[in-house]
Amino acid sequence: PSPAQDDEDTFKILVATDIHLGYLEKDPVRGNDTFVTFNEILDHAQKNEVDFVLLGGDLFHENKPSRKTVHSCLESLRKYCMGDRPVQFEILSDQAVNFHYSKFPWVNYQDENLNISIPVFSIHGNHDDPTGADALCALDILSCAGLVNHFGRSTSVEKIAISPILLRKGRTKIALYGLGSIPDERLYRMFVNKQVTMLRPKEDEDSWFNLFVIHQNRSKHGATNYIPEQFLDDFIDLVVWGHEHECKITPFQNEQQRFYISQPGSSVVTSLSPGEAVKKHIGLLHVKGKKMKMEKIALETVRTFHIEDVVLADHPDLFNPDNPNVTQAIQAFCMEKVELMLDNAERERLGNPHQPEKPIIRLRVDYAGGFEPFSIYRFSQKYMHRVANPKDIIHFFRHRGQKEKKDIDLNFGKLVSRPTEAMTLRVEDLVKQYFQTAEKKVQLSLLTERGMGEAVQEFVDKEEKDAIEELVKFQLEKTQRFLKERRTEAEEEKIDEEVIFCCTHMHRKRSNTCRNDIFTTVVRKMVDIISSYPFHIGLGKSTRMGQA
Amino acid sequence: PSPAQDDEDTFKILVATDIHLGYLEKDPVRGNDTFVTFNEILDHAQKNEVDFVLLGGDLFHENKPSRKTVHSCLESLRKYCMGDRPVQFEILSDQAVNFHYSKFPWVNYQDENLNISIPVFSIHGNHDDPTGADALCALDILSCAGLVNHFGRSTSVEKIAISPILLRKGRTKIALYGLGSIPDERLYRMFVNKQVTMLRPKEDEDSWFNLFVIHQNRSKHGATNYIPEQFLDDFIDLVVWGHEHECKITPFQNEQQRFYISQPGSSVVTSLSPGEAVKKHIGLLHVKGKKMKMEKIALETVRTFHIEDVVLADHPDLFNPDNPNVTQAIQAFCMEKVELMLDNAERERLGNPHQPEKPIIRLRVDYAGGFEPFSIYRFSQKYMHRVANPKDIIHFFRHRGQKEKKDIDLNFGKLVSRPTEAMTLRVEDLVKQYFQTAEKKVQLSLLTERGMGEAVQEFVDKEEKDAIEELVKFQLEKTQRFLKERRTEAEEEKIDEEVIFCCTHMHRKRSNTCRNDIFTTVVRKMVDIISSYPFHIGLGKSTRMGQA
Repeated sequence: PSPAQDDEDTFKILVATDIHLGYLEKDPVRGNDTFVTFNEILDHAQKNEVDFVLLGGDLFHENKPSRKTVHSCLESLRKYCMGDRPVQFEILSDQAVNFHYSKFPWVNYQDENLNISIPVFSIHGNHDDPTGADALCALDILSCAGLVNHFGRSTSVEKIAISPILLRKGRTKIALYGLGSIPDERLYRMFVNKQVTMLRPKEDEDSWFNLFVIHQNRSKHGATNYIPEQFLDDFIDLVVWGHEHECKITPFQNEQQRFYISQPGSSVVTSLSPGEAVKKHIGLLHVKGKKMKMEKIALETVRTFHIEDVVLADHPDLFNPDNPNVTQAIQAFCMEKVELMLDNAERERLGNPHQPEKPIIRLRVDYAGGFEPFSIYRFSQKYMHRVANPKDIIHFFRHRGQKEKKDIDLNFGKLVSRPTEAMTLRVEDLVKQYFQTAEKKVQLSLLTERGMGEAVQEFVDKEEKDAIEELVKFQLEKTQRFLKERRTEAEEEKIDEEVIFCCTHMHRKRSNTCRNDIFTTVVRKMVDIISSYPFHIGLGKSTRMGQA
Repeated sequence: PSPAQDDEDTFKILVATDIHLGYLEKDPVRGNDTFVTFNEILDHAQKNEVDFVLLGGDLFHENKPSRKTVHSCLESLRKYCMGDRPVQFEILSDQAVNFHYSKFPWVNYQDENLNISIPVFSIHGNHDDPTGADALCALDILSCAGLVNHFGRSTSVEKIAISPILLRKGRTKIALYGLGSIPDERLYRMFVNKQVTMLRPKEDEDSWFNLFVIHQNRSKHGATNYIPEQFLDDFIDLVVWGHEHECKITPFQNEQQRFYISQPGSSVVTSLSPGEAVKKHIGLLHVKGKKMKMEKIALETVRTFHIEDVVLADHPDLFNPDNPNVTQAIQAFCMEKVELMLDNAERERLGNPHQPEKPIIRLRVDYAGGFEPFSIYRFSQKYMHRVANPKDIIHFFRHRGQKEKKDIDLNFGKLVSRPTEAMTLRVEDLVKQYFQTAEKKVQLSLLTERGMGEAVQEFVDKEEKDAIEELVKFQLEKTQRFLKERRTEAEEEKIDEEVIFCCTHMHRKRSNTCRNDIFTTVVRKMVDIISSYPFHIGLGKSTRMGQA
């Protein structure tokens, strides 16, 4: 059901998510991509004279964004979202409830000291979620500066009651529900235990357009590691689903229930997977009465991403593993492929002056069947000046047939009793096994609950690099504390356990978005770093990873 | 010359400096001190209806303040400095020049989107100076959010031309000059080479009240490691001198030149030295025509600090080093002293409800003359609940006679050729010697100029702990880069040099404010950490520190 024409009863809402400001900010080629696209998004908001901007989380890529990123974000918001154009909707709900955790618990455009033309409403994502003793997140800096309305924050870990922001423009009334990112398994459990309730306005219950914004796994990553669409209340009209990076913005009706789901997708490519190659859009949502229309707006500043797969064993006519020159043949073949992809990218870019020049290119080569990978380093060199991601153009993998052992040569030591089958277990299974073992040990579970708590919480849901640094810092501080407190060896063993816990926990949280190969590298690095401390700490020899 | 009475021609300016927001923010007792006092300062500004607030640098203690600190600062500024009271002075100078490095190069109270009642003008200090590729500092976050006017920033390292902000209120005209913190030795050199010029308004040169705010060493720390007052231009009327923490706020006329200097001092105790024990004040500066009056405002929320010295050898009647029970006698004596100091502190606190309960107490014990220090740990335990700084109440030192060797057991390895005299050299001398040697090596000096540059700049002028973490991060990243790039051994040796350079450079920058014992600990920790990396990096055996 779509509104015929915009009028004084029509809400115009710019919908976007996963902008990941600061992603690769130090990259000489891609460093500014996220800032440029954020400006493009806000420019669309301004040009389309929207009533407000609705963001679905992960505005920031890092939990603790750099000064440059925060500065750039403030600059964009102040530039595009302040001004004289009057805001034409009102808020009917109790703002002290909607923004209860804010130091300024009211919507920014009603603050008499700020001249806001476009209010931005945002939930937090898993990248920029609240952490630390004071449970602040990066959005709270923007909110305290009066430039963003951070909402949808729940403080309990057992029970959630989502109180909507009630908006009215002319005769249209929107109940805006938000739920900032929560670890999927925890939220799943809460849904199953009927601990998630969505409050509804008492008067004219059916006259509201119910809009829900959420930032969780939508696709199934594990039995309880996602939020099934059916969990959501049937009275909702539209769900804006953040976190998933593939653009599926056109609202799609859930089959069991009547609501629609729009998945805007990210506005930047953060992983080289096929979903990210789908053309990036944001949405211009029109709501009039109970009718809505989602207008797609293609983003022009997003760097294009082209991905293709090659299965060497599918070309027995071209490649014979016994041929001594087969590697050169493969390399030549890949080069030809990349050249074609570059041609396509260039054609696509023609006529779009806002498109960054160098595309992101990924060729995935399945080399199962006795082939050897060639030197990626030299291959990359050739594309240094033509591709935005020269170092990871080529990705070798083996899908067909049985993988060799060394592919998953991750030794979790204490976690499993080193059966040979463990070599072929998936990392995720190792983690499960670990937790099963852990649950039996009362001492350890006490430790993990009390000792780690917050600390672990701060490591998870973050970029790998950040997590390493955080962990190193954390361990360093802890070590110094321990040295002071002269702990016993038994207590030091506990720390070893904690480190393992960190690693596994981190994996558990990241498995949704982090490829196993990246995770393996991360764990290796962490263990290397931690075990190299001069203090008696870190994993013992028995749990040390094999040399990379 | 002081103005008789305030009227529409009188500027009222709240003057403060070195607020060090976030200092000890994780301390369970003192964690909130800086935030509370910042609010008190802004409250004075509001109650006194000042025209503006002038800050002399180091608003933040950390170069990269925590999210909590930035959040708290934004909260205070938004709460106290926004509102409807009209600002009653105008700016005559070209704001695009005054704020040329800002994304919003105009004063905040003239921004039509912000309702500012108290504009804050601030230069940066050595703690919160601009760093990184984009040369941003913490103040720029506030400035981008429209809550502070960051001024006095020079971009050249060779030449400075300070262009004043020209303010007029009624018939009073102020030329406000600012110079953000610059390494003292560099600025000293620039002054000597006549590379510092202060621009003056062309019209009615003598009708302006010339106010200069600066953040540098005022007391002489080394031949060129401070800014002699005489360097400053004679046309100035009043210098507000930041950086020095002792409150000497009452303007004091320079003997050679006619200008006055007011040194507000910090609003928080950050070192346990006598200067910090002086009662903390901020100033209410009245300027009318060319006349001024500095009204002192005592800060009520500052935690009191009491310091006393004891020289054991001065009490031969009480203490005999040969007496087997002398240590107990000393301990009892010190306890008595501390009790007296606590009594004094309690008396001082009476009748001041805003004063924090637990005072900061320091008893410095000169134990030269054959005495032994007692266990500080057990002594501290007794005061855990009565003193804000139980762990460092007692400071043992040896001033009288020759110090024993182990006092300066800092082995700079390559820096000096380990002569026995080196043991008694001051750390500063070691550093000098290092630089003299370094200058002979062209290769090294090239390296330090090109290779280090910015990186080093980011480590200096920071809290010790922060510096360690930064350095570890930096080295880690660099190491990973190096591993990738497969450097030669010769190149790796250069890194060793760089590490040494970092250590010494850090010392050089910090020597003003950092006690030698702290510095020694820092360097030791850094070297321990770096040399423990699994990679071939860090100081070689020959330059390794002795075991602590």
